[in-house]
Amino acid sequence: MDYYSNQISRLIEELSCLPGIGSKSAARLAFHLIHMPLEDVDRLASTMVEARKNVRYCKDCCTLTDQELCPICSNGKRDHKTIMVVENTRDLAAYEKIGKYDGVYHVLHGAISPMLGIGPEDIKLKELIERLQGEVEEVIIATNSSLEGETTAMYISKLIKPAGIKVSRIASGVPVGGDLEYIDEVTLLRALEGRTQL
Amino acid sequence: MDYYSNQISRLIEELSCLPGIGSKSAARLAFHLIHMPLEDVDRLASTMVEARKNVRYCKDCCTLTDQELCPICSNGKRDHKTIMVVENTRDLAAYEKIGKYDGVYHVLHGAISPMLGIGPEDIKLKELIERLQGEVEEVIIATNSSLEGETTAMYISKLIKPAGIKVSRIASGVPVGGDLEYIDEVTLLRALEGRTQL
Repeated sequence: MDYYSNQISRLIEELSCLPGIGSKSAARLAFHLIHMPLEDVDRLASTMVEARKNVRYCKDCCTLTDQELCPICSNGKRDHKTIMVVENTRDLAAYEKIGKYDGVYHVLHGAISPMLGIGPEDIKLKELIERLQGEVEEVIIATNSSLEGETTAMYISKLIKPAGIKVSRIASGVPVGGDLEYIDEVTLLRALEGRTQL
Repeated sequence: MDYYSNQISRLIEELSCLPGIGSKSAARLAFHLIHMPLEDVDRLASTMVEARKNVRYCKDCCTLTDQELCPICSNGKRDHKTIMVVENTRDLAAYEKIGKYDGVYHVLHGAISPMLGIGPEDIKLKELIERLQGEVEEVIIATNSSLEGETTAMYISKLIKPAGIKVSRIASGVPVGGDLEYIDEVTLLRALEGRTQL
């Protein structure tokens, strides 16, 4: 990129290392940043650094937060006896956006994947088991419906069930509004197996 | 976004103000940044601020650069008698990537648009006229093929021609590999008007 001066090239290069940002979007972003008021660029830069420095795992549920306890775990109105297990903080956010679940969460930060060499000890599973020493009535496993997510769900269920805690898995099937003819065979089979009586 | 802690919400919010980044990509970027090594986040943040602080217009061609003269204008091997006029620095980069043009550029930073209230005095046109006092043989107008780009091209051509300098416009027509049936009428008409003898 000799046609851009040094600092512009470096900015484009660093931006294009971010996920989902190719070289064209990186150039677009870089020129946008260069045209932004200096105070806005300063604020964005320090927000990035501050968030990186201060964000850690919630002491209870392991979600990412800048407090010792996340807003959900520190909320006395939530049902702390029901724990929904998700793969990451964005999955937690997906359920929170609906606003219909009033239990708490446990964030694994990954899923078991023998292919990628990610074992049970590489995700926040030990922390989940520790939480079960307290008063817990149900563990809802909401890992993704992928091979890794299913493997993780099976593993957790086998681990917890002997303790006499209710374990459930979110339903897998045809998405609402989905057109049967475009849905893959595995999903169709799951939808058939999981059918409910009317 | 109560389900994210304060600093994460703020980071997502600021990132989603950038062009082409919606709320989902912003969340993805934010969590990527939080998982990056602190030194990498620090470097990205300071690159942004430094670029914003140091980048200015090239004294000759008005492109964005961190030096007084951009790498192209300060290159003695380029043909300084041929000036290609483009709307912005990214358009300049598009031609530089091909590596076949050895003249210099002039970056307008915009195009004349009566609709948006952008007049000739709002773009770097005065600077172009000043450059023509020197030894210039040809001005190639490479503004976009949009209404604004065409208006600007016409305006510049009328302004320069009386000075006896050769003015040309890049060709407009069917893009290479383009399928005639999917191309708009105006482009088809342009291609017909601009036909060359074989």
